[in-house]
Amino acid sequence: MVKVGIVGGTGYTGVELLRLLAQHPQAQVAVITSRSEAGVRVDAMYPNLRGHYPDLAFSEPDVATLGACDVVFFATPHGVAHALAGDLLAAGTKVIDLSADFRLQDATEWAKWYGQPHGAPDLLPEAVYGLPEVNREAIKQARLIAVPGCYPTAAQLGLVPLLEAGLADATQLIADCKSGVSGAGRGASVGSLFSEAGESMKAYGVAGHRHLPEIRQGLRRAAGGEVGLTFVPHLTPMIRGIHATLYANVADQSVDLQALFEQRYASEPFVDVMPAGSHPETRSVRGANVCRIAVHRPQGGDLVVVLSVIDNLVKGASGQALQNMNILFGLDEQLGLSHAALLP
Amino acid sequence: MVKVGIVGGTGYTGVELLRLLAQHPQAQVAVITSRSEAGVRVDAMYPNLRGHYPDLAFSEPDVATLGACDVVFFATPHGVAHALAGDLLAAGTKVIDLSADFRLQDATEWAKWYGQPHGAPDLLPEAVYGLPEVNREAIKQARLIAVPGCYPTAAQLGLVPLLEAGLADATQLIADCKSGVSGAGRGASVGSLFSEAGESMKAYGVAGHRHLPEIRQGLRRAAGGEVGLTFVPHLTPMIRGIHATLYANVADQSVDLQALFEQRYASEPFVDVMPAGSHPETRSVRGANVCRIAVHRPQGGDLVVVLSVIDNLVKGASGQALQNMNILFGLDEQLGLSHAALLP
Amino acid sequence: MVKVGIVGGTGYTGVELLRLLAQHPQAQVAVITSRSEAGVRVDAMYPNLRGHYPDLAFSEPDVATLGACDVVFFATPHGVAHALAGDLLAAGTKVIDLSADFRLQDATEWAKWYGQPHGAPDLLPEAVYGLPEVNREAIKQARLIAVPGCYPTAAQLGLVPLLEAGLADATQLIADCKSGVSGAGRGASVGSLFSEAGESMKAYGVAGHRHLPEIRQGLRRAAGGEVGLTFVPHLTPMIRGIHATLYANVADQSVDLQALFEQRYASEPFVDVMPAGSHPETRSVRGANVCRIAVHRPQGGDLVVVLSVIDNLVKGASGQALQNMNILFGLDEQLGLSHAALLP
Amino acid sequence: MVKVGIVGGTGYTGVELLRLLAQHPQAQVAVITSRSEAGVRVDAMYPNLRGHYPDLAFSEPDVATLGACDVVFFATPHGVAHALAGDLLAAGTKVIDLSADFRLQDATEWAKWYGQPHGAPDLLPEAVYGLPEVNREAIKQARLIAVPGCYPTAAQLGLVPLLEAGLADATQLIADCKSGVSGAGRGASVGSLFSEAGESMKAYGVAGHRHLPEIRQGLRRAAGGEVGLTFVPHLTPMIRGIHATLYANVADQSVDLQALFEQRYASEPFVDVMPAGSHPETRSVRGANVCRIAVHRPQGGDLVVVLSVIDNLVKGASGQALQNMNILFGLDEQLGLSHAALLP
Repeated sequence: MVKVGIVGGTGYTGVELLRLLAQHPQAQVAVITSRSEAGVRVDAMYPNLRGHYPDLAFSEPDVATLGACDVVFFATPHGVAHALAGDLLAAGTKVIDLSADFRLQDATEWAKWYGQPHGAPDLLPEAVYGLPEVNREAIKQARLIAVPGCYPTAAQLGLVPLLEAGLADATQLIADCKSGVSGAGRGASVGSLFSEAGESMKAYGVAGHRHLPEIRQGLRRAAGGEVGLTFVPHLTPMIRGIHATLYANVADQSVDLQALFEQRYASEPFVDVMPAGSHPETRSVRGANVCRIAVHRPQGGDLVVVLSVIDNLVKGASGQALQNMNILFGLDEQLGLSHAALLP
Repeated sequence: MVKVGIVGGTGYTGVELLRLLAQHPQAQVAVITSRSEAGVRVDAMYPNLRGHYPDLAFSEPDVATLGACDVVFFATPHGVAHALAGDLLAAGTKVIDLSADFRLQDATEWAKWYGQPHGAPDLLPEAVYGLPEVNREAIKQARLIAVPGCYPTAAQLGLVPLLEAGLADATQLIADCKSGVSGAGRGASVGSLFSEAGESMKAYGVAGHRHLPEIRQGLRRAAGGEVGLTFVPHLTPMIRGIHATLYANVADQSVDLQALFEQRYASEPFVDVMPAGSHPETRSVRGANVCRIAVHRPQGGDLVVVLSVIDNLVKGASGQALQNMNILFGLDEQLGLSHAALLP
Repeated sequence: MVKVGIVGGTGYTGVELLRLLAQHPQAQVAVITSRSEAGVRVDAMYPNLRGHYPDLAFSEPDVATLGACDVVFFATPHGVAHALAGDLLAAGTKVIDLSADFRLQDATEWAKWYGQPHGAPDLLPEAVYGLPEVNREAIKQARLIAVPGCYPTAAQLGLVPLLEAGLADATQLIADCKSGVSGAGRGASVGSLFSEAGESMKAYGVAGHRHLPEIRQGLRRAAGGEVGLTFVPHLTPMIRGIHATLYANVADQSVDLQALFEQRYASEPFVDVMPAGSHPETRSVRGANVCRIAVHRPQGGDLVVVLSVIDNLVKGASGQALQNMNILFGLDEQLGLSHAALLP
Repeated sequence: MVKVGIVGGTGYTGVELLRLLAQHPQAQVAVITSRSEAGVRVDAMYPNLRGHYPDLAFSEPDVATLGACDVVFFATPHGVAHALAGDLLAAGTKVIDLSADFRLQDATEWAKWYGQPHGAPDLLPEAVYGLPEVNREAIKQARLIAVPGCYPTAAQLGLVPLLEAGLADATQLIADCKSGVSGAGRGASVGSLFSEAGESMKAYGVAGHRHLPEIRQGLRRAAGGEVGLTFVPHLTPMIRGIHATLYANVADQSVDLQALFEQRYASEPFVDVMPAGSHPETRSVRGANVCRIAVHRPQGGDLVVVLSVIDNLVKGASGQALQNMNILFGLDEQLGLSHAALLP
């Protein structure tokens, strides 16, 4: 039984961790912290958990208590894991960070996009990027895992097969991504109000979004060299879901793209390459730790269109974090993550 | 291992049965029928099920095949179970009917509300109304179970404690109920279009809705006599969920309503009496087999307000059907039904 | 040309005033104030207004500038109009207050519900409750108008005909009301987030909502005596719209309710009594200054159900404010308010 | 006063025409036809129109009656205008066709995409493509106008300035477009149900959508030569709105794109070039005949991103049709179309 701690569990990735862990047969939540909600029962804040955690309340973050866990998840804004991860690792606790703190391997790049110095550059060399489909072996050995962002998960899983195979023109990639509003978190901001985000669609951050360097870093790894990427995120009037529409030039008309994708993900339990001609819907992954992908070559041209959908809170955050935990602790990778998506 | 058949599995209660059964450790779907989709794989129609039923396809309904199952669920429009239930029972198969065919004990009343003669009046005497919280012992012995409607489940669970205790004026009950659009099913009708039902609210069926006699029948049982009920359903712009706002006069000011409800449901695994002052949200039960209830006496008056929420497709249909199956086959009543609701 | 000032125009009632005034041929916005947004162009904040107010920016509130207007609208939280109305009236400016400051005629009652002393009790005697359908003559003569709340508008217009006619049992009235999320305003609060309020339904304020005393006051006026009212508001996942479902006992079975309502509102331009058997949808009034009403007597019983829908930001706020302005300044009451609702 | 006929007014473009015409001071609806709803009052079908067309009912289509109008709008599925337009033109009536019948100038191309022979190829030479921003002079002289499709309007207005100026690489254009569900019409189809299209996002028609050849035709005109276009439409969970995200390579880094767009549309009343750095929201044009555009060059690269939003039912259909009518009859182009969008 893995003894689990969660730092900062009041946001959406926190409650989603709790929902998923409630079904996990080999993990138990020992502690969950929140400065603002210390003393409040988790099911008082999240009534969907009533009956599942009868004795669990938020507590003040405390390294000693957290350090007694086998693993600690950070479901926090950036900066928090920087401050605490080192102490926990020193205590022998594994760290799985859902925030952006250890996703970029270059501390300078991190500082540029997040507007503050990197708080734990010494830990960067051992931080493992937790995308199991490209990094499973490293994850097995890791102490500190950076769970990928939601957009980066959808975009990388869709483009990696083309880049690894050297088929796509890596200098002209486009990721036109659409996200549900929960991606903006549970913080009270005007832009995320029902009356602002509902019944409307807009792009945002076209000039530069923090997930751009993360996606680029992952694609570089796959391509084995520099990449040119245009990333346009859009806010979509739904709660959960990311739909990535990915464009890449693949001049080689002889390649069987469907077969390429199917082979690349043949042994991946959480990537579903759909039949040729499919259009995956985000609802087909709602609540489930799955990425569904379809690959198209419209009108037989050079431009290939990859459609990739995930639930931003599951495969794009908390589910992927548990997948990492399963790998890290030698458990069946699908443990606690095998339920079907909620449709309709 | 319970061998399960499903008749008419292309609608929302059908896919929800499949979603829940995929997680059930003691049941296996052997056959699922659909005249219109015979030959189509279930996961071609419902991509959320990809990976869960790799070999399952819809087949033509066939009594011999269905009769080889331990239990057959009907997820059909009314009238279908009338035609088939008798043969299945004769074959020794249990029948759990999610349609309205056996909910009303009076065939004449049924004919009046459904506009056609009752197709199997001889089976009515043994049909058991499958609301476990009021009927568990009968369910254990049943061969034929009528799963309650969605509105009736929410309304009865909210009012039954007051009526059983003889506290409410049974002649003046009101059920003001709000339902998500999935309650109207997956049939293509203009009124259920996104552009018609979205961003709008309306009452419907004020003159008389088919769930009215069903609720009334259940309340009569609880009250031990006639009841007067006004039932106003409303279409609400959400996919899942029923919110029943129930009004009853309780002249006795000395009764502790909170305690009454808590005691009534103390041993019920799927009814959650929330703390005094609560306002349950439908999303707190999304995807879960739970009814959450709160009881209020606004401004200390005689009129008591009970708030009762369910997921119309789970506790209001497919989840309750599985709860009945568990009871019927002597399994742990919570088997396959213990997951937390999806929030947000 | 009426010279208009608006205090606190950054919220939803403010932008809605601007939208409607942009089409009004006899009114011109001279000044709009906001402390927090002073200096910002209104169309920078509300891009739907681009092209309509090329030179209008928010300014610091200033009594001299506002006092030079013919009329000043307050689209502010409660308390602001208390502080400023007196000075404006002294300057000869009419005041139309969309906030709750002057809705309750009893300062003590106001203080009880709003948790602070009434800030201008001396002005209460001349404050006119701006529901034209019951108060048109007083409005014509008024200097200070309290625009009714959104729930109170829908509830009163639905119940007043029964009470004025002495038909309903005034001691047992119920208003089960459903509101879109814009009713909670544009303030950044967790409960109004898309991911919190979307795809869910809940009651709130069952123990007592601030609109309760306001509705009660209006119904007393209509009934000519005390009333007993239970008011349960619900948050509904739509942006605009209020659906009031109203219950009243009308023992007299001989009365023609349809005729009663049609006669009561025969000359009202903004109240639409729909044909018998109708179920008004909130979308049928989206963006329009209309209240649509249908009256039902389900199963011929004593309990009458009135369905009443408005757009909370139009007939429930800014549209009604302009209707008051038109009356006040002797203009055609429909001026600038005659456009059709936006459907779908 | 322009005497207006409408053929096929039961769909969303039909009701939107009626909504807009109700405010038009120089046009009057004389006849509206529908085979299926003949005899039904328009406001019985569309209650938002109650009070606006007290005497208007759908009638059987009849060339004599329609031919007595000054102009007839077709708000029909494709094929209907083919059959009737010739007779109306012969009767001296102008035809403004909102369907696809006359949008493609090549009858063979039309037949290929619509799966049936073109029904009136003889009329094609005089059919004018009704995008006023590129075709105003021709519209003034036209008898037969093909109102552009919704996607084509958003895509062309966003790309035309780059192509006319010869700045974009015309061989590699991408239009990633997101549409609200009303674009699929009011027909009862499973895919447009609230419970299917809600809370989800998906691409569709990636292999080829009927608007592709229309957009391509318009872009060819602007580019003065062949173009290569990839068009990926997406279904978005909102009722109204199109968001086109357009990608084009503009190698010339010296050009001031903001100035280019502002100059191109300087005198256009219905195209709003937003300030540099803007992200237009679809809700900012809801109900209004406006296209808002923003142009970006992310990270200073060669790939330019143009964001273009319209209301698919207004600037993408009925509003644009009235804009054409105004031009055609020498009226002020903004007549009846100058109202602000509905926000929130």
